[in-house]
Amino acid sequence: MADQEQVVKLYGTWASPFSQRIEIALKLKGVPFEYIEEDLINKSPSLLKYNPVHKKIPVLVHNDKPVAESLVILEYIDETWKNNPILPLDPHEKATARFWASFIDNKILATAVKIGLCKGEEKEVVILEVCEQLKMLEQQLNGKDFFGGDKIGFVDIVAFWFQITHEVLGGDFFTPEKFPGLFEWIGKLQEIDLVNECRPPREKHLAYVRGIFECLINTPK
Amino acid sequence: MADQEQVVKLYGTWASPFSQRIEIALKLKGVPFEYIEEDLINKSPSLLKYNPVHKKIPVLVHNDKPVAESLVILEYIDETWKNNPILPLDPHEKATARFWASFIDNKILATAVKIGLCKGEEKEVVILEVCEQLKMLEQQLNGKDFFGGDKIGFVDIVAFWFQITHEVLGGDFFTPEKFPGLFEWIGKLQEIDLVNECRPPREKHLAYVRGIFECLINTPK
Repeated sequence: MADQEQVVKLYGTWASPFSQRIEIALKLKGVPFEYIEEDLINKSPSLLKYNPVHKKIPVLVHNDKPVAESLVILEYIDETWKNNPILPLDPHEKATARFWASFIDNKILATAVKIGLCKGEEKEVVILEVCEQLKMLEQQLNGKDFFGGDKIGFVDIVAFWFQITHEVLGGDFFTPEKFPGLFEWIGKLQEIDLVNECRPPREKHLAYVRGIFECLINTPK
Repeated sequence: MADQEQVVKLYGTWASPFSQRIEIALKLKGVPFEYIEEDLINKSPSLLKYNPVHKKIPVLVHNDKPVAESLVILEYIDETWKNNPILPLDPHEKATARFWASFIDNKILATAVKIGLCKGEEKEVVILEVCEQLKMLEQQLNGKDFFGGDKIGFVDIVAFWFQITHEVLGGDFFTPEKFPGLFEWIGKLQEIDLVNECRPPREKHLAYVRGIFECLINTPK
């Protein structure tokens, strides 16, 4: 299908790591797209129409067909536009990438949120847990520039949120001394122009992430 | 690669819907495999070696290379053995199947577990929630025999656990009157010999699932 026949829209929000994933993937593929900023306090009728189940961003709409859930969208993009593969082509390497992406979303992210929710001794236990998880992930770099090898791939895109969240949550446990591999990797990501284009303004972004965690900590449960 | 060169092992447990998924997929593909029953109270050194991150079943070991996480394994199987596709070939249909598989694992399963954990009014709210989720899933059948169309596919395999869990948790909310589509689908699954081979002995299985929920309900939190 020629490019001029393609209409690609991305419903996202500027600070969401989940919509940033999709922006990075589309840019890696060189797919022109219209970005539509959603107001999550007043969700648009389009978002509710395209993602009636979760009512969440990101949603990719390709020729009026919606795809929701960031990992599902990444796979869709990789299968629809074959240039610059995001996932490895070998089935076992592909499975390994999917395994670590799931680990980031279902384990590391869940534990990172708990850091924001816990206090005192409980918080210490959660920090130990996330450090163990981050160490396991770091080992996958194993001397490579990126999880994808010598260029950015699926796991790098999925782990992209580390580069800002750690500044809010990291404290003295997520440091270059303790995680040299992950910090080198963050540095490598910062060298990629295309990735930098998807990075929101730093101070504004930090303030937003801090806002989320302050709300989590202070809202009665 | 010729079949005789392939060594395929599945580490699972008889009552786990997650290892049942893999059994069904391998049988659909006609892949011969060795099934190794794990004792989850005394995990084997092999399991710990092949899945050091989660230390969980199922693990598929193909020519000594392990793949863990049931959805990741299903994708691996479908990409490695191309006959009898489990996922649709069209990228948008494939994305839709992945979306619903994720919905089953991350939403319906999580809510079903909550039913076992809640009491009184709270339980009523959770039951309403799971009914709404099941209704959304049921709509995907839309007159078809299976979620995959006229034959069993990815979403059918992932939703396979409904066929027994509902007998423990279903009570008066998961009934053929309220969910005629899902009950017809359960009936269609029961007509497939290959699927029946993966079904554990009924009374033993029911007792096991009941045991899990009784433990969840009665263990102090």
